Amino acid sequence: MSDNRNEFEQLREVQVSSEKVFGGHLLHVYKDAITLPNGKEASREYIRHQGAVAVVPLTENNEVYIVRQFRYPMNEVLTEIPAGKLDGPDEDHLEAAKRELSEETGVTADTWIDLGEYYPTPAYSSEVIYLYLAKGLHQGKQHTDEDEFLTAKTVPLKELIADVMKGLIPDGKTQTALIKADLYLRQAEEQA
Amino acid sequence: MSDNRNEFEQLREVQVSSEKVFGGHLLHVYKDAITLPNGKEASREYIRHQGAVAVVPLTENNEVYIVRQFRYPMNEVLTEIPAGKLDGPDEDHLEAAKRELSEETGVTADTWIDLGEYYPTPAYSSEVIYLYLAKGLHQGKQHTDEDEFLTAKTVPLKELIADVMKGLIPDGKTQTALIKADLYLRQAEEQA
Repeated sequence: MSDNRNEFEQLREVQVSSEKVFGGHLLHVYKDAITLPNGKEASREYIRHQGAVAVVPLTENNEVYIVRQFRYPMNEVLTEIPAGKLDGPDEDHLEAAKRELSEETGVTADTWIDLGEYYPTPAYSSEVIYLYLAKGLHQGKQHTDEDEFLTAKTVPLKELIADVMKGLIPDGKTQTALIKADLYLRQAEEQA
Repeated sequence: MSDNRNEFEQLREVQVSSEKVFGGHLLHVYKDAITLPNGKEASREYIRHQGAVAVVPLTENNEVYIVRQFRYPMNEVLTEIPAGKLDGPDEDHLEAAKRELSEETGVTADTWIDLGEYYPTPAYSSEVIYLYLAKGLHQGKQHTDEDEFLTAKTVPLKELIADVMKGLIPDGKTQTALIKADLYLRQAEEQA
């Protein structure tokens, strides 16, 4: 612990001041003046984000509900696992995951397994995505927002892992969560 | 292909206009007016990013060079694989990967394996990170930028994978690249 403490003190950057340089509908961009470990001054531009959740919903037949969704910055339709932003910084992560899963696929789940935290862009966004594996699924009715366009379907996990390795699933949280879920399931099987 | 084409046409959002709303040292934020698939107008805020590279440098003893680096938006020192932005949109990805690996760790490599593209935040940044596995390493001299503070060291891949599963390596590109490298190596072994 004291090693980590020393490392933190040696590498940390200290805030001098913070300014909001863009406040949009979605993005909130800040520019902070900071002091580097060598005492020099510098600035850091970054997005403050309230966090998000993403879920690998696994059926009894080892299929995963995925969504196909247009992503404007990439100009592409991507294969993604169900995901979404927290409603607010205080929303319970698991409750948010249940809400997003239900909204995007209509599915509820009996068992939720924590797959850990995922920082998509620690260099310029404070976003944390909380990853889950959901099992014991029950199909209900999809209820996306009026202006949310996506199609949900199920694909065998094995096929998705092969697609990740072939480079066909570039979305970061989806690659990570799928491979972690697969590894988790294999390790659970080995221990059984 | 025509299915994909239909899907793209059904889900795509069409640009009406584009405005740069923040131009910083690092971040370039745009707000575009768009048309949704249902014909309604909406806006999209996002970062235009010229792309980046990240490398899993694997030694003959199956150890990986990692860097420990302070990330201001998270206020944390993170375990990451060597990575960095392209010098420009036209920089060759592999050349950039060689450059970043050499700068951050002093290492050069004989063999480079493509681990695919990784989109960290397709909802609000156009960033693509090109992932590589590098083998046949030769140790040289680290030469980070004057104001870049990081420490490089080697850790067994097996230990890193266990740490990923324990949630100790939250950085997204690092989680993804490490597990993909591990899966790639296991598949290569099975085929041998």
